[in-house]
Amino acid sequence: MLASTSRNVVRRLKTAGRSAGCQWMRAELSTSVPCRDTAARAERPSFPCVDQHAARQSRILSSLTHAPDPCDTGPEVPYARPSPQSYQTYHHSQPLPLTYFEPLPELDIAYETWGTLSPARDNVILLHTGLSASSHAASTSQNPAPGWWEKFIGPGRALDTKEFFIICTNVLGGCYGTTGPASSDPTDPTGKPYATRFPVISIFDMVRAQFTLLDYLGVEKLYASVGCSMGGMQSLAAGWMYPDRVGKVVSISGTARSNPSSIAMRFAQRSVLMADPNWNKGFYYDGLPPHTGLKLARQIATITYRSGPEWDIRFGRQVRELPDEAKARDPSLPRQPALCPDFLIETYLDHQGEQFCLKYDANSLIYISKAMDLFDMTLPALTSLNLSLPPPSSTPPDSDAVSPHQPAHLSSHSGSKSHPPPPNPAPHLPDLAAGLVPLQNIPVLVLGVQSDILFTVEQQRELADALRMAGNERVSYYELGGVWGHDTFLLDVQNVGGAIRGFLS
Amino acid sequence: MLASTSRNVVRRLKTAGRSAGCQWMRAELSTSVPCRDTAARAERPSFPCVDQHAARQSRILSSLTHAPDPCDTGPEVPYARPSPQSYQTYHHSQPLPLTYFEPLPELDIAYETWGTLSPARDNVILLHTGLSASSHAASTSQNPAPGWWEKFIGPGRALDTKEFFIICTNVLGGCYGTTGPASSDPTDPTGKPYATRFPVISIFDMVRAQFTLLDYLGVEKLYASVGCSMGGMQSLAAGWMYPDRVGKVVSISGTARSNPSSIAMRFAQRSVLMADPNWNKGFYYDGLPPHTGLKLARQIATITYRSGPEWDIRFGRQVRELPDEAKARDPSLPRQPALCPDFLIETYLDHQGEQFCLKYDANSLIYISKAMDLFDMTLPALTSLNLSLPPPSSTPPDSDAVSPHQPAHLSSHSGSKSHPPPPNPAPHLPDLAAGLVPLQNIPVLVLGVQSDILFTVEQQRELADALRMAGNERVSYYELGGVWGHDTFLLDVQNVGGAIRGFLS
Repeated sequence: MLASTSRNVVRRLKTAGRSAGCQWMRAELSTSVPCRDTAARAERPSFPCVDQHAARQSRILSSLTHAPDPCDTGPEVPYARPSPQSYQTYHHSQPLPLTYFEPLPELDIAYETWGTLSPARDNVILLHTGLSASSHAASTSQNPAPGWWEKFIGPGRALDTKEFFIICTNVLGGCYGTTGPASSDPTDPTGKPYATRFPVISIFDMVRAQFTLLDYLGVEKLYASVGCSMGGMQSLAAGWMYPDRVGKVVSISGTARSNPSSIAMRFAQRSVLMADPNWNKGFYYDGLPPHTGLKLARQIATITYRSGPEWDIRFGRQVRELPDEAKARDPSLPRQPALCPDFLIETYLDHQGEQFCLKYDANSLIYISKAMDLFDMTLPALTSLNLSLPPPSSTPPDSDAVSPHQPAHLSSHSGSKSHPPPPNPAPHLPDLAAGLVPLQNIPVLVLGVQSDILFTVEQQRELADALRMAGNERVSYYELGGVWGHDTFLLDVQNVGGAIRGFLS
Repeated sequence: MLASTSRNVVRRLKTAGRSAGCQWMRAELSTSVPCRDTAARAERPSFPCVDQHAARQSRILSSLTHAPDPCDTGPEVPYARPSPQSYQTYHHSQPLPLTYFEPLPELDIAYETWGTLSPARDNVILLHTGLSASSHAASTSQNPAPGWWEKFIGPGRALDTKEFFIICTNVLGGCYGTTGPASSDPTDPTGKPYATRFPVISIFDMVRAQFTLLDYLGVEKLYASVGCSMGGMQSLAAGWMYPDRVGKVVSISGTARSNPSSIAMRFAQRSVLMADPNWNKGFYYDGLPPHTGLKLARQIATITYRSGPEWDIRFGRQVRELPDEAKARDPSLPRQPALCPDFLIETYLDHQGEQFCLKYDANSLIYISKAMDLFDMTLPALTSLNLSLPPPSSTPPDSDAVSPHQPAHLSSHSGSKSHPPPPNPAPHLPDLAAGLVPLQNIPVLVLGVQSDILFTVEQQRELADALRMAGNERVSYYELGGVWGHDTFLLDVQNVGGAIRGFLS
């Protein structure tokens, strides 16, 4: 069959080559082709993918509304902030201590809740978000739009609202109601936004902010701290900072130590964003936002959220085909490729960037992605931060008691049940175990995905190993297959949801 | 030991917290810290990583020399083009047929050679480059600077100059002496550069250009076609287009079909480049080049050239430390992180981008990376290009003869000796095998690297499998370990060089 196909191709193409004249004769090296299409060459090509940046800029410019109020602090923020009616806000009027810089004088925390708080206030799950998510994890009566974890929250779901009272906040540094770089700087006499006067924050700072809300709500102890991606970091940090106030910890596709690969990908995003002239060193709130830089950054981020195998299946090498283009084209001639997005994988990334670039604040991306980079729970790193190491929870494990601060197997591998000991354990594994000692007595679910290129499966194994080395005997560990990569936590309701439900019950 | 360390940390930090007052008290949730450093917050931070773009722009501006000649076609190209005396140039005055567009009216090919051409002209190795390399693969008497493959070329080396005459060209579309977007457009009345009037080219077009040079040099048949990365693509394409003129094919970390992951990474690079206002839709040759976009693009590319495990070993989570910074800092306080490059992985990527952005032409990056994306040797793809499928070389293999166009094992796996049959062979594998039939009778060395994230090891296995399915019984296949990723071909003289030497002898 193949031989005959090949012969047909050769025959058909030789004919096509002859009939199309000089334009389409190929592969024959010495074919002399004297004709030129000078008119076509002299014409400058069009680049719709470049023009769209200017078009977007014009749209934003015309939509910016300037209030006549002399106290106006500039135009409305150009990204789609949710209506303040769609979430609750807690105003914390006390300073919030920070890891690296002087305290924030005050802060707002936007949050939403699902389910009913028990009279004993002992059924609370604190849900932590990834980088760019708002507090809107699931639909509410105030905001019926589906949330980012819609299928995981509700009666009988992974986070069961018949049983639990679930709280999700917009993270410190974010732009969906919680204090971040776009918020008014209380120390600025004109009340202008912080912009890059906002201090560099840490994952620990995000968690500390969330616990001011728990104090306000009178929640002394969480039933569980649950998070995915950066939320997994926060979840671990919550158990570490407040071991007596966290009953269980869930980390889905998170890590206790950002590795240089993931820092590299986030650095690339920050670099393209900060190079956008509109970024203006972060002071763009009274002008045009760096929408092009944010689009380019999101394109890069999107590459890390899925996996090569998924794109092989979903897009392969397919190209976009505009109907009029297809009609106009002589079917015997090859399709002419473009330098603008052409393959479906390109139009997909372009679309993801375009969708995001007016929905999020560029400075929030910079600060929160930096906080992710800085996250490192090895003991030397924690020591260098002057973060005082809290004692482990006073509740001993169900099995043989382990002394506080006395890891059970620091010198030998803990013998994970769900995966074999690492052949070449990372040199920082003992340091990570030492840093995780405060989590010793808290049951922890670690779930990772083998196709994840951002929070790799090696990091998941390392986390589970380190927790066990730290003496934690209640570590549940799962690896998921599939091709969804890092985004599995948003998509795989059956496996991710099932593991969480089982662990929480 | 750990327990005592932890207790010391807690004790030391509690003391430090007290002595440093409000600034460094952390982790204690309810600590009320009323002080503010308003002066520090009101100050706008500095961003040297952003300022450097403007500084670079000023440097370029002042270095651009305008000739007084009225026929001047603009300032000198701002990237460091090698001296024309350092390479030879062949001017091909006939049109060169192209895959997608009308022929190029004429072209120059820059090339360098090593070794001595045998009287029978039968000892020629054509060496193909990766994306951004020049013809300067190794030092010559005209240009004693080390080349990009210095340690692989010379007496007794992988490409042995005692035995072979090695030719390396700058690729079509490049900017180091061969015709590309920066070349004068012969159809432009003022002789201005093509810029983006340059046609989109294919890997096949690059090879066709190289064979005009071989014709000029009177080389009827190559001893071998050798290439790494994009050079591997060209090497396969040379064997495919001219099966009777290529004795052996070497593909190191190449592929016969670009996958969507690699297209995504190159798309991200093109996007940031084309969004640079200096890019000006490609018409920047009489002004400032898109140096910032090119730097950002190179940063992204660099991420794909090495591997996470290498960065873990080489950089880990180390940060840069400026001597005066370290001196000024109170050692009891945490180091304050910056939003500009701070981790060594960031300063490394920044440095790589900075080094590259004035050494290369942005339009060449766009055109050549696009040609890589377009490369697909499956039969349906070749058919859609109207590339006529040449017959296999007339030389039958040493072992049992295989009929031309009659693949030996198209329906069953060929039983690779060096790796097990793929558990889930890609659905396009039979199509790729059908496309590779013209290479049936040419010995092919396929070498890949397990840590390569750009040209993955799965693609190497796929290529070897497809060649065998196409009936090629002389496929040599090796996989290398190590942590150098895609760049292994530049670094691993022992293993890469050894495999080539063995295969060529």
